[in-house]
Amino acid sequence: MSSQFSYTRIAVDGSARAGIYHTPHGDIPTPIFAPVGTQATVKSVTPAQLHELGASLVLSNTYHLYLRPGADLVAEMGGLHSFMQWPNPILTDSGGFQVFSLAGIRKIDADGATFKSHIDGSMHRLTPEKSIDIQQKLGADIIMAFDECAPPHDRAYNEQALERTTAWAQRCLQTKTRDDQALFGIVQGGVFDDLRIKSAEWTASQPFDGLAIGGLSVGESKTEMHAVMDKVVPLLPQDKPRYLMGVGSPEDLVNGILRGIDIFDCVLPTRLARHQSAMTLTGRINMLNAIHTHDPNPIDETCSCYTCQHFSRAYIRHLISAREMLSSTLISIHNLYTLLRLVRLCREAILEQRFTSFAQDFLSQYNHPVK
Amino acid sequence: MSSQFSYTRIAVDGSARAGIYHTPHGDIPTPIFAPVGTQATVKSVTPAQLHELGASLVLSNTYHLYLRPGADLVAEMGGLHSFMQWPNPILTDSGGFQVFSLAGIRKIDADGATFKSHIDGSMHRLTPEKSIDIQQKLGADIIMAFDECAPPHDRAYNEQALERTTAWAQRCLQTKTRDDQALFGIVQGGVFDDLRIKSAEWTASQPFDGLAIGGLSVGESKTEMHAVMDKVVPLLPQDKPRYLMGVGSPEDLVNGILRGIDIFDCVLPTRLARHQSAMTLTGRINMLNAIHTHDPNPIDETCSCYTCQHFSRAYIRHLISAREMLSSTLISIHNLYTLLRLVRLCREAILEQRFTSFAQDFLSQYNHPVK
Repeated sequence: MSSQFSYTRIAVDGSARAGIYHTPHGDIPTPIFAPVGTQATVKSVTPAQLHELGASLVLSNTYHLYLRPGADLVAEMGGLHSFMQWPNPILTDSGGFQVFSLAGIRKIDADGATFKSHIDGSMHRLTPEKSIDIQQKLGADIIMAFDECAPPHDRAYNEQALERTTAWAQRCLQTKTRDDQALFGIVQGGVFDDLRIKSAEWTASQPFDGLAIGGLSVGESKTEMHAVMDKVVPLLPQDKPRYLMGVGSPEDLVNGILRGIDIFDCVLPTRLARHQSAMTLTGRINMLNAIHTHDPNPIDETCSCYTCQHFSRAYIRHLISAREMLSSTLISIHNLYTLLRLVRLCREAILEQRFTSFAQDFLSQYNHPVK
Repeated sequence: MSSQFSYTRIAVDGSARAGIYHTPHGDIPTPIFAPVGTQATVKSVTPAQLHELGASLVLSNTYHLYLRPGADLVAEMGGLHSFMQWPNPILTDSGGFQVFSLAGIRKIDADGATFKSHIDGSMHRLTPEKSIDIQQKLGADIIMAFDECAPPHDRAYNEQALERTTAWAQRCLQTKTRDDQALFGIVQGGVFDDLRIKSAEWTASQPFDGLAIGGLSVGESKTEMHAVMDKVVPLLPQDKPRYLMGVGSPEDLVNGILRGIDIFDCVLPTRLARHQSAMTLTGRINMLNAIHTHDPNPIDETCSCYTCQHFSRAYIRHLISAREMLSSTLISIHNLYTLLRLVRLCREAILEQRFTSFAQDFLSQYNHPVK
């Protein structure tokens, strides 16, 4: 464990927690949502805009940065904070999930994973040691153990993957040397209670700086996702942050916070923005819809973001119709702000001991998008 | 002429002038470069970023806005300033140049031009009256007379086009009613001295608020461009601003200012940015060049723009390689800043009566790009 990191729990409301995670690049108020900057940039948004909308933690992807521009180059440029000019906390994942979801032909063995680059088809190999080595070169504040993410309903696959994830986690703990980085362990086990419990108990027992729940939002139902959190979170230590990986719809944030999650990340807000979809605290809006053609109102009248303080739905729809890049920027700013606003509202509600009713009200009025 | 506009000449140095053009949406220090927001957005840059980099006048295109989203919609949204959220001066062109350069099948007659939309192939008609009507609905501070832009070396075409441009200019003057808009006349005549002189004398004699030189940077040589300015500018009144349309390379700005031009516009800085080309005061840089891969320096060490104050060439090259939209934004910010910086430097040199040597030094060391 690194002495440069600590989690301060400020308030508890049911299972929900409000706290601060202290890192060498600043404090993260929790619960928090981390915008994703896959290739060392949150797509279509400058760091100045990201700062202005109140982001604190930003996630970047080890798999992508390893392939391009390479970890050595990032290290040579002073690390990820300097390279992408984000002076606040950064988290990198381990590359494991992308190897299993994005890369071409792959071969997993006890030692690691061999895979084909999605960029140029070249062959690469990641092991727990290699993943930590890359993440140490990238230099994020929070780095992740190298894990295997199995299809959630395949029992045999999950049993084997969990064994590997556990063995790899130990190797990650042994490999990590930098004291200015926190290493988080990852709980796996698909939708299977016994596997999840076994994984949670083991991971909680190890000297990780924080605990993550992986392998969710990858095909299981919402009920199954909630059941996993209900089993896992109570087994995690109170004095370390809990991170639900790759989850970021408004209803998932509230459901996760209700169950004691502190950190979330997801590409959803920026990806939806590039597909003309605006997020609000009551549901999504297709900004290309003809209904907005003459609408002088902002995306969300209750929103204080730069986009909503300046631009009409009519203008944003025009930008989309005219295929102007600015539409992605403006909707990304709004969507990111909406999720950051949501976690701020949750945090306030926890601090004021009214989070259960806040969550009930939110979930009952939120218009869940049809898949 | 509109009483809400006036040009104050502050200093003269040779033929070069430094001044202020007063408009209802603020003062424009001249000489000035106007970034182009063709479809009511300067591509990939927010108005806040545009303001931060010191832009004052922004140009938008009547042809594009007429076709999409339509002038009535812009008027309904409070006009272009409100629609695109640019509170400072705006200029719209007349649509004439685009009809002749961009639209499909077209038929010109004494009354106007019939053309096919480049967007959906629908047929449209622009006349001087229609162009002014559209520009009055858009509501820019400076609007332009509807003209015919002929190929610069075709004598017969230019004779006929100039007759039409003159007749149309009179109809524009008669049609315009808004007192909060300045109407500029346009000098045409290709590369032919007698036609240019005739056009300049006539245009200068009319109650226009400002004078523009059109039909340049469309295929003639630099020598021919300079010769036209040398013939035309001395015939223009000293108390009105002079605008060289569609011209915006660094050397063209300096050559224009040397000859007494006050206003320039061009898509070059944002178009080059989308093609990975960074502008500097000594030449262009291809930011995708492998030479930048490990370069920790900014695009231009002498530049104070947001991009150069934060990001390395290595990072910008990575963004381009990874096809990240942020590269267009960051290079656009830098390129626009470079041209705005250049006109500021020119203005200072004029105020300090050292512009001739400034221009000589600049032109002798500027590395002109190969076409």
